[in-house]
Amino acid sequence: MAVRAAVAGASGYAGGEVLRLLLAHPEVEIGALTGNSNAGQRLGALQPHLWPLADRVLAETTPESLAGHDVVFLALPHGQSAAVAERLVPDVLVIDMGADFRLKDAADWEKFYGSPHAGTWPYGLPELPGARAALTGTKRIAVPGCYPTAATLALFPAYAARIAEPEAVIVAASGTSGAGKAPKPHLLGSEVMGSMSPYGVGGGHRHTPEMIQNLGAVAGEPITVSFTPTLAPMPRGILATCSAKAVPGVGAEAVRAAYEKAYADEPFVRLLPEGQWPATAAVHGSNAVQVQVAYDAAAGRIIAISAIDNLTKGTAGGAVQSMNLALGLAETTGLSTIGVAP
Amino acid sequence: MAVRAAVAGASGYAGGEVLRLLLAHPEVEIGALTGNSNAGQRLGALQPHLWPLADRVLAETTPESLAGHDVVFLALPHGQSAAVAERLVPDVLVIDMGADFRLKDAADWEKFYGSPHAGTWPYGLPELPGARAALTGTKRIAVPGCYPTAATLALFPAYAARIAEPEAVIVAASGTSGAGKAPKPHLLGSEVMGSMSPYGVGGGHRHTPEMIQNLGAVAGEPITVSFTPTLAPMPRGILATCSAKAVPGVGAEAVRAAYEKAYADEPFVRLLPEGQWPATAAVHGSNAVQVQVAYDAAAGRIIAISAIDNLTKGTAGGAVQSMNLALGLAETTGLSTIGVAP
Amino acid sequence: MAVRAAVAGASGYAGGEVLRLLLAHPEVEIGALTGNSNAGQRLGALQPHLWPLADRVLAETTPESLAGHDVVFLALPHGQSAAVAERLVPDVLVIDMGADFRLKDAADWEKFYGSPHAGTWPYGLPELPGARAALTGTKRIAVPGCYPTAATLALFPAYAARIAEPEAVIVAASGTSGAGKAPKPHLLGSEVMGSMSPYGVGGGHRHTPEMIQNLGAVAGEPITVSFTPTLAPMPRGILATCSAKAVPGVGAEAVRAAYEKAYADEPFVRLLPEGQWPATAAVHGSNAVQVQVAYDAAAGRIIAISAIDNLTKGTAGGAVQSMNLALGLAETTGLSTIGVAP
Amino acid sequence: MAVRAAVAGASGYAGGEVLRLLLAHPEVEIGALTGNSNAGQRLGALQPHLWPLADRVLAETTPESLAGHDVVFLALPHGQSAAVAERLVPDVLVIDMGADFRLKDAADWEKFYGSPHAGTWPYGLPELPGARAALTGTKRIAVPGCYPTAATLALFPAYAARIAEPEAVIVAASGTSGAGKAPKPHLLGSEVMGSMSPYGVGGGHRHTPEMIQNLGAVAGEPITVSFTPTLAPMPRGILATCSAKAVPGVGAEAVRAAYEKAYADEPFVRLLPEGQWPATAAVHGSNAVQVQVAYDAAAGRIIAISAIDNLTKGTAGGAVQSMNLALGLAETTGLSTIGVAP
Repeated sequence: MAVRAAVAGASGYAGGEVLRLLLAHPEVEIGALTGNSNAGQRLGALQPHLWPLADRVLAETTPESLAGHDVVFLALPHGQSAAVAERLVPDVLVIDMGADFRLKDAADWEKFYGSPHAGTWPYGLPELPGARAALTGTKRIAVPGCYPTAATLALFPAYAARIAEPEAVIVAASGTSGAGKAPKPHLLGSEVMGSMSPYGVGGGHRHTPEMIQNLGAVAGEPITVSFTPTLAPMPRGILATCSAKAVPGVGAEAVRAAYEKAYADEPFVRLLPEGQWPATAAVHGSNAVQVQVAYDAAAGRIIAISAIDNLTKGTAGGAVQSMNLALGLAETTGLSTIGVAP
Repeated sequence: MAVRAAVAGASGYAGGEVLRLLLAHPEVEIGALTGNSNAGQRLGALQPHLWPLADRVLAETTPESLAGHDVVFLALPHGQSAAVAERLVPDVLVIDMGADFRLKDAADWEKFYGSPHAGTWPYGLPELPGARAALTGTKRIAVPGCYPTAATLALFPAYAARIAEPEAVIVAASGTSGAGKAPKPHLLGSEVMGSMSPYGVGGGHRHTPEMIQNLGAVAGEPITVSFTPTLAPMPRGILATCSAKAVPGVGAEAVRAAYEKAYADEPFVRLLPEGQWPATAAVHGSNAVQVQVAYDAAAGRIIAISAIDNLTKGTAGGAVQSMNLALGLAETTGLSTIGVAP
Repeated sequence: MAVRAAVAGASGYAGGEVLRLLLAHPEVEIGALTGNSNAGQRLGALQPHLWPLADRVLAETTPESLAGHDVVFLALPHGQSAAVAERLVPDVLVIDMGADFRLKDAADWEKFYGSPHAGTWPYGLPELPGARAALTGTKRIAVPGCYPTAATLALFPAYAARIAEPEAVIVAASGTSGAGKAPKPHLLGSEVMGSMSPYGVGGGHRHTPEMIQNLGAVAGEPITVSFTPTLAPMPRGILATCSAKAVPGVGAEAVRAAYEKAYADEPFVRLLPEGQWPATAAVHGSNAVQVQVAYDAAAGRIIAISAIDNLTKGTAGGAVQSMNLALGLAETTGLSTIGVAP
Repeated sequence: MAVRAAVAGASGYAGGEVLRLLLAHPEVEIGALTGNSNAGQRLGALQPHLWPLADRVLAETTPESLAGHDVVFLALPHGQSAAVAERLVPDVLVIDMGADFRLKDAADWEKFYGSPHAGTWPYGLPELPGARAALTGTKRIAVPGCYPTAATLALFPAYAARIAEPEAVIVAASGTSGAGKAPKPHLLGSEVMGSMSPYGVGGGHRHTPEMIQNLGAVAGEPITVSFTPTLAPMPRGILATCSAKAVPGVGAEAVRAAYEKAYADEPFVRLLPEGQWPATAAVHGSNAVQVQVAYDAAAGRIIAISAIDNLTKGTAGGAVQSMNLALGLAETTGLSTIGVAP
């Protein structure tokens, strides 16, 4: 019997992507689609790529419209998920694609998000040590941020293997869909095409404490993260260029070995053959992660680079992957590792 | 038992796209992958988005390497398919994604392609009147060109309904993958980003006689086509803006009715609701076609516009759709109408 | 002594481009910069590419702020120029980059713009027959629309030479800056990158009557125009693909001769050598127009194609060119024919 | 009397850009244009944006064709400049836009370029301490690499002020024109649009020793540089995200002060107001550099970011700026700080 799924926030990019994936998921039946300002509109006008759902009309996001489903995906602005989630019955699987339940440290949450901390849910990055166990059978999932997904998968093998110093430097380029669908002047096509620009420089980006939380847990010690996000002239994709000094005595072989060990059996993370480098186009529309690592002997640094699709593995694909675990389905059900390229 | 398929020309864009689709096709098993200059290389280095095939190595394109399959896809430069096809046994299904077997008129072929005519195979555009019958059970399929697919689907309903004068004007914008993967200076990213430019202006493009053949057959009379292709700064997609004078007495209602009739039951062609216009992004990576039509009373013209993905419905998706018919499978098997957007 | 120029609407794309050009104009000194919602802001925050003006602060658009200048450029939304212009003294040169004073036919204006007709000013397309005389010494200039500039320059030589039938078909692709800087969802970078889409199809675009006015005046008879604009994934540039049936008896030589005659001495319009086709990248940031023409014998049509920068020759460059004529300066003063490419 | 300039390698991107700038230079007259494989072709076919030079024909690059000029710009592949330069008379100003004469350390050259070291010429980055004196009156100039220009201008103020530890981490995104005009599969528009990808990771990029040379000289001590270049989907521009640990005791004020001091009087480098960040679009086509800096207290790092146009300030603009110094002209002659945006 099909799993019945509702999507709150179906008009945005995260909502659209989770619908795209659920339409291809053999065990899921799509139930209510809700929105706020777009309630009452046809999905075909808002998400013209989702032809099979073109004639569906958005309902208001209310406890009533979301009731009666097995799974509810929340694709809402930060800070709005808790109010919706608390009115859903405990035995429905609630998957929050926003930030509300990702951080464990309430002070971090308050500092970066400026509102009271709503709590912490199991973190939907199955590749992290211990994560699969925590996700199996859970009724609440906090989907990781897109940048933390990319950066954590690039760097955690180095910290897991104790070969990296606890000071990480992360520079990531994201496609514009990561900034959402609310129209703002700096996100206009005229502004972003032909331009690269940074934002949230100097430690201010909200994904920084999430990266510190992930990598610190693996490292078993506090680490610092210098994170600089940049906006790239493309609709999708994150390329995360991450580095840390190597622990004394570590060389190229140990680095390679740490990554081969970490990703030997991961269904969605591919450590590329030596000499080949990640490209966001190669994972466009897929749940795959491309990872590569190098050791720079002159600088004494480990350079680990990952490419993901920010909307798929970085948001909705990660959500579906965790949903599969929570529901007891095969983790890869309905997800593809094949990119749409060129 | 799975259909075993080989792809000749697996390193190019058409070959890569047919592999992407076949990987998702439930009835197909991928057999030999061949190339010429790239023989001996890993597919992972050539098509990094096709992770499940990354470790496959390209064989030489020879009768031996292609033997023992149920289906052979030819993704070869124009003029090379006949030599390969004639050495394949008659009961293998051969699907030519090149131009060699599309045209019925040998003189047209020789004029536009400059080589002897190889013959004519059943034409793989199932939406055309009579096409499904011709494709069912066939062992040879000529996949239409990308521009003729877009232009024919935009205009044929008008000619089928006898509401358009026999002089069509077609201006189409194509993504750069339509020009192939052989590196040429004018196809460099530096040249195409930020630029729109026409080519093959004035009737010289090789897809012109194919459009004339398609539309003339539907119209039941000779028609002329003024076709201007343009290169757009995007990797995929064709937007075809097509028009013809309306037959005297025809108005907006008759125009709409003709298109509603033509596309009432087509699984891959969607006549959009009035007021919504096609966009290539909405069909990115999918086999769907978006069509819209308007009647310009002041100019007395029917304006019909279609959007396709040039590599999917325009090449490899059309090939798989026709393959399904030839093999007796459901026509939509393994094909999606859901675009990857934004 | 320098010409002192004010720009009303300095925060938008047209305003920014006229400032970019005026900064390079040897006879102009930049005076007041005004805006409405952005009044009080530093220009450096709104137009970060205009470094020399970074510390200038926008004033409110009022008669007082615009007083005391020799030239006032109006870069305002359609319908707002008349109210501002009527409060400026008669001997200041007022250059309207909006649509308000372009159309001669009040009924056309009211039909397409839905407001009362404000009047008609000399039309700032110097290349049209008689236009230079009308612009010399004038105190009021209506700058042409971007699409009419491109389409008129592509087609008028054919109508001037009486070689084209009076039914023109125009399909044009524009960069997104033509749609302005007000943020709207369909103009987001995420939406436009990778996508081509039409709008205003079927005769509804407001530039249609302006094209009819221009070409009809040259032809000396009424003409119809079927105009389809499309949005292309690039920030700047218009490629206009225009065609009309050739008058019986006209062939390739007569077509070429008509264009050679029209553009033999134009400083900003270049008829390309045969075999070379326009590209928007080649005129990026310049006031140059690339034109090419072909005769399609099979279809009996003349195909004329132009490329312009929509913000330069299509708006602000055309404005400065006309200003030069109005002020008695050399027409090319301060304007470049050199594109910024690649 | 005009300075007569020749350009060897006029068909490539660096050659085209230097011609674009020289056409706007009031003291320069353009003499011979030379090429190798393109000799005999019209420049209009190779560089269609340079209308005023469209009918010039490329000569062969020989001592004879380059003789009789005051300045010779060499825009040749790495390793070819020395052979040409040694056959030019000593009193002609030779400006090498390739790498041949940048490095002081012969071992570095041989390690990274694999050929014998040709020598070291005055380094054309006037903003570096002491550089203007070395360039004034010189007859030989080595134009810096594009990445070293961006990275050095981002970081040297921190090293000059002794506030940064000697381990720099640099991640830079470049437009595709930095990779040149020779067609290669990975530079096709189809491949680069929609994709970010790194290359030369782990210390292997040839610009690494040049950065070490520049920053080490300013720091007065050896420094290490971890440099990762990435290819961005845009034709022009470099965004360099650079960081280093702050020396203990250094805080945000000291960091800001160091940059304000370094760039108080530089005509082409603009330290942005606090809160505004560099964007490559803002310097498109200009010689301007946008710089911003932040201090990340949690990570203890200085983050300095610069945006340049790789072809202008990063290559040809830097070359003209240095030429002005060598010839005793005002340093800013013929160069603009105004970008072409959007």
